[in-house]
Amino acid sequence: MDALQQAMASAAVDVEAVLQQVLESEDEPERRLLESMRYAALGGGKRLRPFLVLQSARQFTVSRKSALRTAAAVELVHCYSLVHDDLPAMDDDDLRRGKPTVHKAFDEATAILAGDALLTLAFQVLGDETTHSNPGVRCELIVALARAAGAHGMIGGQMIDLAVADRDVDIGEITRLQRLKTGALITFACEAGAILGRAGEPGREALRGFAHDLGLAFQIADDLLDVEGTAAETGKAVGKDATQGKATFVSILGPERARAQAGMLADQAVRHLAIFDENADFLREVARFVVERRS
Amino acid sequence: MDALQQAMASAAVDVEAVLQQVLESEDEPERRLLESMRYAALGGGKRLRPFLVLQSARQFTVSRKSALRTAAAVELVHCYSLVHDDLPAMDDDDLRRGKPTVHKAFDEATAILAGDALLTLAFQVLGDETTHSNPGVRCELIVALARAAGAHGMIGGQMIDLAVADRDVDIGEITRLQRLKTGALITFACEAGAILGRAGEPGREALRGFAHDLGLAFQIADDLLDVEGTAAETGKAVGKDATQGKATFVSILGPERARAQAGMLADQAVRHLAIFDENADFLREVARFVVERRS
Repeated sequence: MDALQQAMASAAVDVEAVLQQVLESEDEPERRLLESMRYAALGGGKRLRPFLVLQSARQFTVSRKSALRTAAAVELVHCYSLVHDDLPAMDDDDLRRGKPTVHKAFDEATAILAGDALLTLAFQVLGDETTHSNPGVRCELIVALARAAGAHGMIGGQMIDLAVADRDVDIGEITRLQRLKTGALITFACEAGAILGRAGEPGREALRGFAHDLGLAFQIADDLLDVEGTAAETGKAVGKDATQGKATFVSILGPERARAQAGMLADQAVRHLAIFDENADFLREVARFVVERRS
Repeated sequence: MDALQQAMASAAVDVEAVLQQVLESEDEPERRLLESMRYAALGGGKRLRPFLVLQSARQFTVSRKSALRTAAAVELVHCYSLVHDDLPAMDDDDLRRGKPTVHKAFDEATAILAGDALLTLAFQVLGDETTHSNPGVRCELIVALARAAGAHGMIGGQMIDLAVADRDVDIGEITRLQRLKTGALITFACEAGAILGRAGEPGREALRGFAHDLGLAFQIADDLLDVEGTAAETGKAVGKDATQGKATFVSILGPERARAQAGMLADQAVRHLAIFDENADFLREVARFVVERRS
């Protein structure tokens, strides 16, 4: 395992501890709900978005606790979006992170409620004073997360994705779609460190630019994995996009050009980080990681 | 129309204006999502929860704008919960407020996303500085709303409701269930005015006690309407609880005792307001209104 992978694994352990804590469940009548939330949020995933929060926070003066709780909130939102996206009325997926999806392991109603509750919990975590002593910072995080995850962010992107499912799209449309669907939350994750550290505009701008290119590179790599990966590697069904005739970066550009584009975006992402010192090296490496990953 | 009904109608108009504003939609690819959110949130409902926010705020020094934006946020959460509760996997309802439910008027995927986006928007509205100049107050609203709407509040209540659908429940269980499912958000609505007004413990305690009894009275009245109301009056299907063999206050207590219980709770609710002057008269009247309403 190289240094980046070690750092990601260690961050995942720390974030998992916070998630465990905020998802603690007692023997209460609604415990099935808590079980489904824990099933959805614990013990899986690369925890890429939390890692981005922690690493962006490292560029400024931010307490470990503030960064970890913010990282956990972002992951709660990411996990809720997966639970809802997997529902039969949406992408209808049976497998996620190598396990049955929540509506398969529990049932559809529970999956809807689990997603709702994970989303709600994310805002509760950010609003709580243990996340940051300055309530102005907490409100800024909350508004930025709501924007990134909302109707003109992640949810809007998912809506467009459903709307274009049975028609041709061009590269401009798919870029905008993915910028909302996956890009917005990744951008929030990178900006969160700057918000927590009350950074000035140059730092924020650099992280936004980085996140913007990273998000697209990540999505292109995801589309490539759907074509070239195996279910064993990715923990989810592969080849779905082609079977469903869904337009992706790969179906539009072809695998060669898509791979080249992802690499170019990763390089471009790194260039945005020029204003930071070696503290940003893991951010630089993560840009390479997202395009080379096999899962 | 009596004074209370006039005040409620006027409050509904003002809250509608805020909802219109935060749900403004442009000609963008995700406009179908915005349309479904507007369909779910605009132009319907008694706006009871917003009215409770506005009236509780009247007991303290709170700007009209702060109260209205908080009222709108509560209504966004209420509307999202209706959209998700109506889904086929949940209560499977076709009619709401006299119109087809969102998944009927649009489709299931859109209804899931519309609910998610309304919930997200509620937190964005509360976090925004136009809601209150003090970010500490905004954070307190956000955490309290997340608690009320979350896994140990409204969503937890809905989960228990699904879990007990096919077995007998006693009056204690159904009271706890409804305290979460409908009571928690009503309690937040009443407490919100105290939070906005930075009220001391006596004021908060009085409003919590009031809301607690009001919420149960409201739910018993709802159960009575399902037995005795018509679809034309209520704007939704009636007689569903009995058809589905679902335990309610009415099925357990019988209509006579249920009605007596609702009246007793309404009286009890009013007694909690003794510390307030005639500014609280609409709150007193609303307790009577919820048990006598025909819709």
